[in-house]
Amino acid sequence: MQIARTVAEYRALRAASLAARPGLVGVVPTMGYLHEGHQSLMRRARAECGTVVTTIFVNPTQFGPNEDFSRYPRDEARDLAICEAEGVDIVFAPSVEEMYPGGAETTVSVGSLSRILEGAARPGHFDGVATVVTKLFAIAQADRGYFGQKDAQQLMVLRRLAEDLRFPIEVVGCPIIREADGLALSSRNVYLSPEERTQALSLSRGLRGAEALWAEGVRDADALRHRVRHEIEAEPLANIDYVSLADQRTLEELAGPVTAPALLSLAVRFGATRLIDNILIAP
Amino acid sequence: MQIARTVAEYRALRAASLAARPGLVGVVPTMGYLHEGHQSLMRRARAECGTVVTTIFVNPTQFGPNEDFSRYPRDEARDLAICEAEGVDIVFAPSVEEMYPGGAETTVSVGSLSRILEGAARPGHFDGVATVVTKLFAIAQADRGYFGQKDAQQLMVLRRLAEDLRFPIEVVGCPIIREADGLALSSRNVYLSPEERTQALSLSRGLRGAEALWAEGVRDADALRHRVRHEIEAEPLANIDYVSLADQRTLEELAGPVTAPALLSLAVRFGATRLIDNILIAP
Repeated sequence: MQIARTVAEYRALRAASLAARPGLVGVVPTMGYLHEGHQSLMRRARAECGTVVTTIFVNPTQFGPNEDFSRYPRDEARDLAICEAEGVDIVFAPSVEEMYPGGAETTVSVGSLSRILEGAARPGHFDGVATVVTKLFAIAQADRGYFGQKDAQQLMVLRRLAEDLRFPIEVVGCPIIREADGLALSSRNVYLSPEERTQALSLSRGLRGAEALWAEGVRDADALRHRVRHEIEAEPLANIDYVSLADQRTLEELAGPVTAPALLSLAVRFGATRLIDNILIAP
Repeated sequence: MQIARTVAEYRALRAASLAARPGLVGVVPTMGYLHEGHQSLMRRARAECGTVVTTIFVNPTQFGPNEDFSRYPRDEARDLAICEAEGVDIVFAPSVEEMYPGGAETTVSVGSLSRILEGAARPGHFDGVATVVTKLFAIAQADRGYFGQKDAQQLMVLRRLAEDLRFPIEVVGCPIIREADGLALSSRNVYLSPEERTQALSLSRGLRGAEALWAEGVRDADALRHRVRHEIEAEPLANIDYVSLADQRTLEELAGPVTAPALLSLAVRFGATRLIDNILIAP
């Protein structure tokens, strides 16, 4: 495994890797503090590609002014060991200056998809994501990019981005990885106190509850959302940002009976920690 | 020479060309109605690259609602003959639907550079240019992109874009090509009546006049701008949009004595036809 700190170093390593191992290049963009969710993406890339690239970059432009950029957890030595163990060929771990050199002003915006749900709760978030991922796609020159379904809306925004800008990359979505008790893996889970962590189980419990109602034949959007809310509102430390049941292509909020594939998603704050989770449901 | 109408067709032709002629890929993005200015770009690309690509696409998103998108001159048969004669390997000539498939919403914006001069006179113009060129760069997968100095600000915006988004492409600027009488070549010159065409010579005459003053030691920005204005204002059919003498890196308007490389540029309307021209001056 080799580590590139600059775009020029990465390009040289990519060329050498392609010469030694002709085949697809797969990239797993991450903000580091890697967990089993990221590892599942690396394994999928390893199974499908000749060259596997992981990027580690905590992107400042996707954090709001009052969000957790400065305290976002970082542990590069541990991350590199994980990449090595997963058989990653190249880690691209640039500085902020390398990704946003003085004067960088170009921004990418994905339109309506990026302004609802997470985009409404975190103004500018998806413009930051779209801009950095455009750069990472242009740098990585990969055939496939692997992203987790945990960030369901991000995955949709990035699919739209790659399609709209005609990047020669396939955006591959991979299933959410959960702890045994149901909590969706997230680098931000380390922020949770033991009490918050226990109450955070209401997120996946609520989603599973709605899924059970769905299996019983309940189709009313309000009833399904209410089932989730009810579970989470029972926890005194939980503050709901949103519980959404939306069209799976447009993310438009659904009313009445659900007749098309839908995304049931939520964002909940515990103190300063904000967690998201989701499930897909389809008639 | 081969013609691609779709991204998929282009990618197949590019791969075949690279296999047959390993080396650099050079792209010359155009809106068609090709003239000697475009041909000079193709020749430069032909001299430097193994595979030369020309794109022909009249991009609707860079035209304002009251601009000349629908009447912009088009003559594809003639354009293809010119490309063939210049030794172009691949012409990429997509439809609007291929470049902006239903639902395409992603936009690219280059910030302050794109909001002054041409950007101020044509709101949204450079966002349209930045978005389509990002797509063309992502599609073409070229090592070099060739652009004319006639559109000096566009060249600066695209250099900024490529650098900011980290595209693996070198943006190459090429000199303005002029008619024997000094008129800068432009596809829009065909709009001019004989009388307008005669009066349009005041643009290059004014720029040359300022250049002569500069050679005589005149450094005052107002005096240099005035020299250009004076020449153009003598023509009754000419309406000046702007005459600018600006810093060559930032395009900030200069005052007092000019001490750093500068761009002397102008936009002038003759009826519905809008012409631009410029020269670089350097201490």
